[in-house]
Amino acid sequence: MIIRIVKDEGPITGEQIAERLNLTRATLRPDLAILTMSGFLDARPRVGYFYSGKTGNQLLGEHIRKLTVKDYKSVPVVCQEETSVYDAICTMFLEDVGTLFVVKEGGFLVGVISRKDLLKSSMGNQDLQTIPVGVIMTRMPNIVTCRLQESLLDAAGKLIYNQVDSLPVVKEGSGRDQLEIVGRITKTTITKAFVELGEGSSV
Amino acid sequence: MIIRIVKDEGPITGEQIAERLNLTRATLRPDLAILTMSGFLDARPRVGYFYSGKTGNQLLGEHIRKLTVKDYKSVPVVCQEETSVYDAICTMFLEDVGTLFVVKEGGFLVGVISRKDLLKSSMGNQDLQTIPVGVIMTRMPNIVTCRLQESLLDAAGKLIYNQVDSLPVVKEGSGRDQLEIVGRITKTTITKAFVELGEGSSV
Repeated sequence: MIIRIVKDEGPITGEQIAERLNLTRATLRPDLAILTMSGFLDARPRVGYFYSGKTGNQLLGEHIRKLTVKDYKSVPVVCQEETSVYDAICTMFLEDVGTLFVVKEGGFLVGVISRKDLLKSSMGNQDLQTIPVGVIMTRMPNIVTCRLQESLLDAAGKLIYNQVDSLPVVKEGSGRDQLEIVGRITKTTITKAFVELGEGSSV
Repeated sequence: MIIRIVKDEGPITGEQIAERLNLTRATLRPDLAILTMSGFLDARPRVGYFYSGKTGNQLLGEHIRKLTVKDYKSVPVVCQEETSVYDAICTMFLEDVGTLFVVKEGGFLVGVISRKDLLKSSMGNQDLQTIPVGVIMTRMPNIVTCRLQESLLDAAGKLIYNQVDSLPVVKEGSGRDQLEIVGRITKTTITKAFVELGEGSSV
């Protein structure tokens, strides 16, 4: 009944709802608290209650949308433009990652190399020890990045939409157009977050 | 107030709750429906309402645990044991997947090849056109698999725990110890499911 009243007349104050139901405000308080906590109603100070219009599914989504890149990012594995393709492949195996980030002095992001890029270049009959990764990497500004404050959901959406396995987490550097790399978000990160949510142990 | 009553006296019927509150069962019905729908109360026929003791986090976990492999799997990309490493790499690029499943006649799973396996073998100075994938693939029974009825959460846990990018979805074949491959679950699958949950559009 409360929901019906708020749906029809909202925004409406707690007092007014109580009046409609011939109850005191105090009697009604726990019910309003539950309906607000569970997300069916929204409350705004000095305005009153209004119907959120949210279904159970949407409420779950809200919980996920609160997770941020900052809390889930892992450490980026980097190399230089001059690193050979051969050494890059070795680093990838040693560090057990699927993507390397190419940086210049100061940790500024200049490129990205994926397992796919390395596989492609290793198929040609070239000497992998002499080709620098600078030749095969994806360069800025064609790199999809994310920020520390961004939601993990947005980062996951970028992974899917851009069909990449990994995003560098960047922040503004001191120079113009320079982005400092401070982390990475991968499909593994998202899969781990999914498992945590499923086990009810997320942040 | 309803939650307090159910907490203290549950399991308790709707009639009994209505009595405690000096309300009719009909007046109470919408409130009980909301509290049950949102997961704060559980209801069992012929027993009554009891307090679920669940937080929002636990409810999200419960929702995730209901998703199954069957509803999320994608089509597996396969090759034969005799396929050359060179052709396997080409198939991987053409189909844009990170893992190939090796099958014999009838679609029975005999092996798995990852981008990592192919990268490793392409680093040696061998002729990729003459090496069959049967030589470098991971063989049964060392392949981690999942089933159609399994929860997506369990499959995601296997991806993380076993540090693999992809799981074949299998079902029992006609022969002894033979598993037919009917799909695949990858970290991309899980990332997509995560995005769907966050957008409130999941199954």
